[in-house]
Amino acid sequence: MIEETVISKAIIESYIKDLLASVESDVIIGGAGPSGLCAGYYLAQKGFRTLLFERGLKLGGGLPGGGIMFNRIVVQDAAKSMLDEFGISYQEYQPGYYVANSLETTACLTNKAIKAGLRIYNLISIEDVIVREKSVNGVVINWSSVELAKLHIDPLSFKSKIVIDATGHPCEIARIVERKSGGKLLTPSGKIEGEKSMWAEVAEQLTMENTKEVFPNLYVTGMAANAVFGGPRMGPIFGGMLLSGKKVAEIVIDKL
Amino acid sequence: MIEETVISKAIIESYIKDLLASVESDVIIGGAGPSGLCAGYYLAQKGFRTLLFERGLKLGGGLPGGGIMFNRIVVQDAAKSMLDEFGISYQEYQPGYYVANSLETTACLTNKAIKAGLRIYNLISIEDVIVREKSVNGVVINWSSVELAKLHIDPLSFKSKIVIDATGHPCEIARIVERKSGGKLLTPSGKIEGEKSMWAEVAEQLTMENTKEVFPNLYVTGMAANAVFGGPRMGPIFGGMLLSGKKVAEIVIDKL
Amino acid sequence: MIEETVISKAIIESYIKDLLASVESDVIIGGAGPSGLCAGYYLAQKGFRTLLFERGLKLGGGLPGGGIMFNRIVVQDAAKSMLDEFGISYQEYQPGYYVANSLETTACLTNKAIKAGLRIYNLISIEDVIVREKSVNGVVINWSSVELAKLHIDPLSFKSKIVIDATGHPCEIARIVERKSGGKLLTPSGKIEGEKSMWAEVAEQLTMENTKEVFPNLYVTGMAANAVFGGPRMGPIFGGMLLSGKKVAEIVIDKL
Amino acid sequence: MIEETVISKAIIESYIKDLLASVESDVIIGGAGPSGLCAGYYLAQKGFRTLLFERGLKLGGGLPGGGIMFNRIVVQDAAKSMLDEFGISYQEYQPGYYVANSLETTACLTNKAIKAGLRIYNLISIEDVIVREKSVNGVVINWSSVELAKLHIDPLSFKSKIVIDATGHPCEIARIVERKSGGKLLTPSGKIEGEKSMWAEVAEQLTMENTKEVFPNLYVTGMAANAVFGGPRMGPIFGGMLLSGKKVAEIVIDKL
Amino acid sequence: MIEETVISKAIIESYIKDLLASVESDVIIGGAGPSGLCAGYYLAQKGFRTLLFERGLKLGGGLPGGGIMFNRIVVQDAAKSMLDEFGISYQEYQPGYYVANSLETTACLTNKAIKAGLRIYNLISIEDVIVREKSVNGVVINWSSVELAKLHIDPLSFKSKIVIDATGHPCEIARIVERKSGGKLLTPSGKIEGEKSMWAEVAEQLTMENTKEVFPNLYVTGMAANAVFGGPRMGPIFGGMLLSGKKVAEIVIDKL
Amino acid sequence: MIEETVISKAIIESYIKDLLASVESDVIIGGAGPSGLCAGYYLAQKGFRTLLFERGLKLGGGLPGGGIMFNRIVVQDAAKSMLDEFGISYQEYQPGYYVANSLETTACLTNKAIKAGLRIYNLISIEDVIVREKSVNGVVINWSSVELAKLHIDPLSFKSKIVIDATGHPCEIARIVERKSGGKLLTPSGKIEGEKSMWAEVAEQLTMENTKEVFPNLYVTGMAANAVFGGPRMGPIFGGMLLSGKKVAEIVIDKL
Amino acid sequence: MIEETVISKAIIESYIKDLLASVESDVIIGGAGPSGLCAGYYLAQKGFRTLLFERGLKLGGGLPGGGIMFNRIVVQDAAKSMLDEFGISYQEYQPGYYVANSLETTACLTNKAIKAGLRIYNLISIEDVIVREKSVNGVVINWSSVELAKLHIDPLSFKSKIVIDATGHPCEIARIVERKSGGKLLTPSGKIEGEKSMWAEVAEQLTMENTKEVFPNLYVTGMAANAVFGGPRMGPIFGGMLLSGKKVAEIVIDKL
Amino acid sequence: MIEETVISKAIIESYIKDLLASVESDVIIGGAGPSGLCAGYYLAQKGFRTLLFERGLKLGGGLPGGGIMFNRIVVQDAAKSMLDEFGISYQEYQPGYYVANSLETTACLTNKAIKAGLRIYNLISIEDVIVREKSVNGVVINWSSVELAKLHIDPLSFKSKIVIDATGHPCEIARIVERKSGGKLLTPSGKIEGEKSMWAEVAEQLTMENTKEVFPNLYVTGMAANAVFGGPRMGPIFGGMLLSGKKVAEIVIDKL
Repeated sequence: MIEETVISKAIIESYIKDLLASVESDVIIGGAGPSGLCAGYYLAQKGFRTLLFERGLKLGGGLPGGGIMFNRIVVQDAAKSMLDEFGISYQEYQPGYYVANSLETTACLTNKAIKAGLRIYNLISIEDVIVREKSVNGVVINWSSVELAKLHIDPLSFKSKIVIDATGHPCEIARIVERKSGGKLLTPSGKIEGEKSMWAEVAEQLTMENTKEVFPNLYVTGMAANAVFGGPRMGPIFGGMLLSGKKVAEIVIDKL
Repeated sequence: MIEETVISKAIIESYIKDLLASVESDVIIGGAGPSGLCAGYYLAQKGFRTLLFERGLKLGGGLPGGGIMFNRIVVQDAAKSMLDEFGISYQEYQPGYYVANSLETTACLTNKAIKAGLRIYNLISIEDVIVREKSVNGVVINWSSVELAKLHIDPLSFKSKIVIDATGHPCEIARIVERKSGGKLLTPSGKIEGEKSMWAEVAEQLTMENTKEVFPNLYVTGMAANAVFGGPRMGPIFGGMLLSGKKVAEIVIDKL
Repeated sequence: MIEETVISKAIIESYIKDLLASVESDVIIGGAGPSGLCAGYYLAQKGFRTLLFERGLKLGGGLPGGGIMFNRIVVQDAAKSMLDEFGISYQEYQPGYYVANSLETTACLTNKAIKAGLRIYNLISIEDVIVREKSVNGVVINWSSVELAKLHIDPLSFKSKIVIDATGHPCEIARIVERKSGGKLLTPSGKIEGEKSMWAEVAEQLTMENTKEVFPNLYVTGMAANAVFGGPRMGPIFGGMLLSGKKVAEIVIDKL
Repeated sequence: MIEETVISKAIIESYIKDLLASVESDVIIGGAGPSGLCAGYYLAQKGFRTLLFERGLKLGGGLPGGGIMFNRIVVQDAAKSMLDEFGISYQEYQPGYYVANSLETTACLTNKAIKAGLRIYNLISIEDVIVREKSVNGVVINWSSVELAKLHIDPLSFKSKIVIDATGHPCEIARIVERKSGGKLLTPSGKIEGEKSMWAEVAEQLTMENTKEVFPNLYVTGMAANAVFGGPRMGPIFGGMLLSGKKVAEIVIDKL
Repeated sequence: MIEETVISKAIIESYIKDLLASVESDVIIGGAGPSGLCAGYYLAQKGFRTLLFERGLKLGGGLPGGGIMFNRIVVQDAAKSMLDEFGISYQEYQPGYYVANSLETTACLTNKAIKAGLRIYNLISIEDVIVREKSVNGVVINWSSVELAKLHIDPLSFKSKIVIDATGHPCEIARIVERKSGGKLLTPSGKIEGEKSMWAEVAEQLTMENTKEVFPNLYVTGMAANAVFGGPRMGPIFGGMLLSGKKVAEIVIDKL
Repeated sequence: MIEETVISKAIIESYIKDLLASVESDVIIGGAGPSGLCAGYYLAQKGFRTLLFERGLKLGGGLPGGGIMFNRIVVQDAAKSMLDEFGISYQEYQPGYYVANSLETTACLTNKAIKAGLRIYNLISIEDVIVREKSVNGVVINWSSVELAKLHIDPLSFKSKIVIDATGHPCEIARIVERKSGGKLLTPSGKIEGEKSMWAEVAEQLTMENTKEVFPNLYVTGMAANAVFGGPRMGPIFGGMLLSGKKVAEIVIDKL
Repeated sequence: MIEETVISKAIIESYIKDLLASVESDVIIGGAGPSGLCAGYYLAQKGFRTLLFERGLKLGGGLPGGGIMFNRIVVQDAAKSMLDEFGISYQEYQPGYYVANSLETTACLTNKAIKAGLRIYNLISIEDVIVREKSVNGVVINWSSVELAKLHIDPLSFKSKIVIDATGHPCEIARIVERKSGGKLLTPSGKIEGEKSMWAEVAEQLTMENTKEVFPNLYVTGMAANAVFGGPRMGPIFGGMLLSGKKVAEIVIDKL
Repeated sequence: MIEETVISKAIIESYIKDLLASVESDVIIGGAGPSGLCAGYYLAQKGFRTLLFERGLKLGGGLPGGGIMFNRIVVQDAAKSMLDEFGISYQEYQPGYYVANSLETTACLTNKAIKAGLRIYNLISIEDVIVREKSVNGVVINWSSVELAKLHIDPLSFKSKIVIDATGHPCEIARIVERKSGGKLLTPSGKIEGEKSMWAEVAEQLTMENTKEVFPNLYVTGMAANAVFGGPRMGPIFGGMLLSGKKVAEIVIDKL
């Protein structure tokens, strides 16, 4: 016998219990694209209480669309071992270039990260950050449907020791901090530098260098790293995003 | 050294090679919600050439949103073994009711289905079906971005022996057949009956009965089955959808 | 010292505790216009566990706009005592016609109803009803922002012994039942009759007659009553809505 | 016997009589959120002719939505006595933190303010201010539906000795003055400073300091105060808004 | 010395005094296109208390656009004398065809009608009619900006002995009566017949025949007459509309 | 006998003959609000070949809406004689303040201006100006429907000795010149100063002073004059606009 | 020396001279897709005064988009000679299947048709038809930008002996006739039958049979033919459209 | 016999083969207006591997709309020989001014360019450029439907030796380079200068001067040239665009 009210209670109770336990955490990641999921996997695996807030209903960022809607991605040699780590199938196209299915890649990243303990909250947008004496101490969140529906509803606060901006091109969290803290980011100009035109080779390399702290306790990874520090746009090659996600996890683990 | 043009060629070639091989197949599934992915998994596992076309960028249908944006789903006893089959974690809420993470569930269904050999094409919508002497022989597809952008572009045809409508409430493929074939569906009224109000217990049972052929070579599964044959709405309980996906696969395998 | 996380926890815990206690109730009212708030007040006052779901962010329906944005309403003699009951100020315009401020009226109805024990959930829409053997047994709800944002998210079920449709002209709950149960409403035609043109005198009288059961366990009140049973449109006079709200409460109390 | 034309006349006459009497007043408040209603209550209570113009159909600003659509608010110790003043029910969550229903709070603020004599005009937007020799002397208003409907209709002028900007984050009136008077506001930069990121403790304190005159005869209160003078964002805690509303009333009373 | 508040009071008082005097009248016309203005002119000229409600900000209906945005209109011999009556300039194009400026035509119709005593209320839409014992007794109006802004605000009622539908193709008032009175119009089918394809010669003639009563106390004129009684579409020739406006005035004068 | 093709030819021929004769003229006015119509009247009356391009379908600018949709306007003593000149009815509200019907005012201005010889082209927008050696020599026009329909269609050029910007607040023509000529307007800053907040008394006076040349051969009138030269917003009093329109005509006549 | 006004006059005069000469013609075609252009070519080549009205800015209908945005089309053996006739390049893909560039095809059809004497008016929509004694005698047209801009502007009439509906799936002209003439089309049901699902082989054959008269003096061609007479959808193969365009020209030539 | 799957394969294979061959080329042109098509014609004719990416479904830019929707264009003496080169018909309006049909002109340019070997890809937008050591080395493209549908999908890269910006007023490619390379364009200010007001005579001349390199390996032509280098707007005369397209081809041929 299936009773509707038991289902309602089961869903509400299990979700809210989890949500309440997340009001304070070690790390909050914004954005469930490849670098965000990757960072979350490595952090959760090490036992850190890690949350990921994603604005959309579904995960993966732009990854599932592959290149121009052809659902394949390419990964270079340097990141091949990460495909193995996440259990993603691939084929060699030409020495040093591996092709994978973008939908399978999204599923494997998600599955591994959640099983490692990452708490993912989809349909949530980050409206603001919590600051204390010029350092970031958490985020201020709301349902993204509130924003889409153009409703005026107050948000709630979630505290954490570290925040990671993995929101891609828009680098939304860094942008909030730039606008609301007077613009003193740890970049050459103190502001968001903006992504440069495409140069795949250089981009892959600079992404790794740009994966770092941009404001006390706020880190950037993936495309957000290049957008904030002015690196060139990456080609439709996903190795750099996975490696950047891994790197930001390592830096944060060192700090915690 | 990473060369942009190699990446472009790798993505175009690997996707198009796959697409050309799919112009003719055994089974075409419309819709990547839980029942469509589940059906695809069981069909591909048995070696049938199976495609799945999904209109959206990402997979899972309404599954990732859980119940009212609380990302949890409930599965009843009857479907518990399927959670194990797909490697989905769960917790018992109360005897006979199991709670799982809706995002992990989506990822596990996707991952297993693709690894079993299911070819999933996202961002594609089904505009029409191919008919021959009053039976369905394939589908007529287009990029869903063409539809969203309100462009007027001609579609292409993909043939298959069987078509499965797993598009949920809208039962889009059955609706095309109803509109363009004079309305003689294998339902009591010869037309789409329309979903009835919620009655979880009865719905779960009727979904299984309604999982069947609705027009020569066209089958319905999941919520589309209840929408077409007039079953009640299911509660936010996903066991029925998984079981219906498995059942439609078994029926189709018998027929092929 | 004010701590953001305590505020977050306080809001989540107190709201969810209340929501969980509402999964099963005596009466569910749809719509927070004058008749819905009035019905809720009288039911809660008698100790029945009564919920009210309102799609909008704010309460009062069309009441706060008065007539053509002039924020005044008129109440006739028959309903004058109800203004006193709710503590609403008024002035006599002409014998038998009393003018009140539409914003104060909204506030007084809301305040009294909540203090009497009515549990109001704003920002929630009713998507469907629960049925058992051709009678209504509760409602299926979702965040209205989900609908506004055109997201596809599954709803949850809330059970109750009685449901009251106080959604005004659109008579949304009766319309769901008409569409999803084969149309056998307790009206002359078995369908929604539709509101007739304005005739204030007759409308006030017929509203009271039309305030009744329209399907087993489903009642209509206020403008929804005239819309369902084909009464004429009421003039911008609010007495009928208050009286109808009171009447539906009395009928339901008798039945429970 | 109910006659439609009497109702029409009653509504038009009573509203317009009130409106004509408001063309000249002591204080005009813009925005019916918690601080605006609170300021209006204290001013009207002291016998000052006070108007409040609200762009929306309904009152309360973002208050009715609670935190992330969970309709509860939290008030700290310092503002607890104001809950009592307005007759708002509450429960202690933890020492120093009181939880109230956001819908009841809105209703109580509205009811008390109107009964104290505050004249509230909803559905009206403030398009401009009246200035004389570099001081504000009233506002220029229009129906907000004119703006929503993108019609080009001329406004009308309402004079007052004092204007209070209680429009929240957008601080709309201060922004008009900044744009149309050359930008010499009484802020450090002479311009609107913009709200800083969230720091609940500090915000509550600074809100009180920022509640003051921002241009001759123009005062700011609530979230508008922090937006104009660059204070941090308040947490979803409403005590500060109530206290700021009370404070601005006291300052203005002193001046008049 | 110019005082803003005097201007505000002058506009409010003069408009509202006029509006209150219009709550009861002899004739209400809906629509300020050529036939509505023409009918209003002849009725007001004879001393009947006549109102005209126009949804738009400005008058003239489609007249100012001439034909395909070329601001000229053509009038045939039969209506030439009406151009003289309204003081409209014209030139003979070919025997029996006179060309006039569509903007001057609009201005002359408006000017003459208002000077004759017609009370025109622009920016008002007719939402419903008042009925008594199956006859029309007035209209239910609202600001059209309310409709455009998608606000839910109650209307007010204005009574009259006669109502004239001059709303053109949409024949909005007849359509309200059809929908809300069970569809018994005085047309062959009892319903709105719908305009037929263009046949200028026949259309001009039938328009005059179709200018008559369509429901007790409701008359149609101009394009609304052909739309209701199924006459052919008129060519871009305006004589028929002016003559129809004159004729409906004569019929109504006879009846009053 | 009425022949559709004769009507088509009559409209096309008479409009195009007029349009071709307008390709070169003495004065082009942009905007058919009160000051534009007034300027056009005085210029045409003196025999200058004068055109007026209006973006909208209908004339009058914001005039027909009166104040907050109450269709009345107020004119002060100084402009009373102009009401007589245009044959507009009025009533004295209080010494020095005259109330007129805004719809009749629009009609009278239009009628008189066209009869005086002004060529008005409605539905046309001014996209650019023609320049020669840093002076304006005409305008570049297009159908405004092209703009509304977001089509990309090239415009045509119309030359004239003088151009008058009567487009109100947006001062569209001056803005084009500012943007496309490097910003050297004949204003204090060389740029558009922007309208200041309302001060009716001062505004009426400054409007007259600001009615002048803003760039070689380009003049501003009415609200555009205050917007360009930074005068305060006028109250809803139309005398200043009429007087400004008359004044710009006089200045231009002197120059020609 | 280039003078802007000469350019303006040259464009206006040459277009309008052509337009006036088109007010009466032999054949009017609606729609500039492949079948409409093809029909226009053959008719104009034989010396018939033929016009084509196209709603869009550019020609070719859905042809330029090829299949799913891949700009290639396929033509079968039967229509190969037409590619030669229009000077279109092609390559044999497989015996009996020829591939051509969809952009070159569009250009060749357009170029040949205009050079043969077809008068094409783009940006024009057909709003209605002219009827006389139950036969079509021309069309009623307007700028399509008027429709897109949602303006209410009257159309003009263009007469012809024959009208051809080449508007594709929507079969817009036949639909106007169905709606405005009581529905007696020369189809089995007297109404538009609606296109059936795809069956390329049968569709190509039935298109030729369905290319015929559907109402006195109104013919259908291309996809409109199948939509009106209920043939199956054509595959993305363009031979049938070209052949149907040629056939309708032959039938019409015989009749004239 | 026509088989749908053969058609699908023929279209996919022929398009993709062509696309893969275009991943590396000599010249990439952005924009299929008159200057882009003209440049492509001359480059392809000389045997250079030349691609043209066009965002729209159809070609010609604003050309098919003629002037204000009157589909004629004017060409001056200097460009008359180019009309002959492309086989475009024309008539002399007045010495030195030739009128042509804008639709035939578009078709002739397209036809000749494709036959000369230009590879045109419509429905593609250029999102970014590839850079190496401060020079442009190709473009980053995507389906324009992805942009229109607001999807977030990664692009692909196409390399070339030279890129030509022929996107008209928006000069989209130059704008990308300005934004993403720090703004050092080869213009006086180092930035995009912006188009000046119309001066046909001077514009035609300056367009030729401005047709040049604007960043290493990036050239501008047609209206983009004037927009980038600050030339005046051209009149609706197309000779300059054709001549500019020819000139940029000559410059690029010299360089390659």
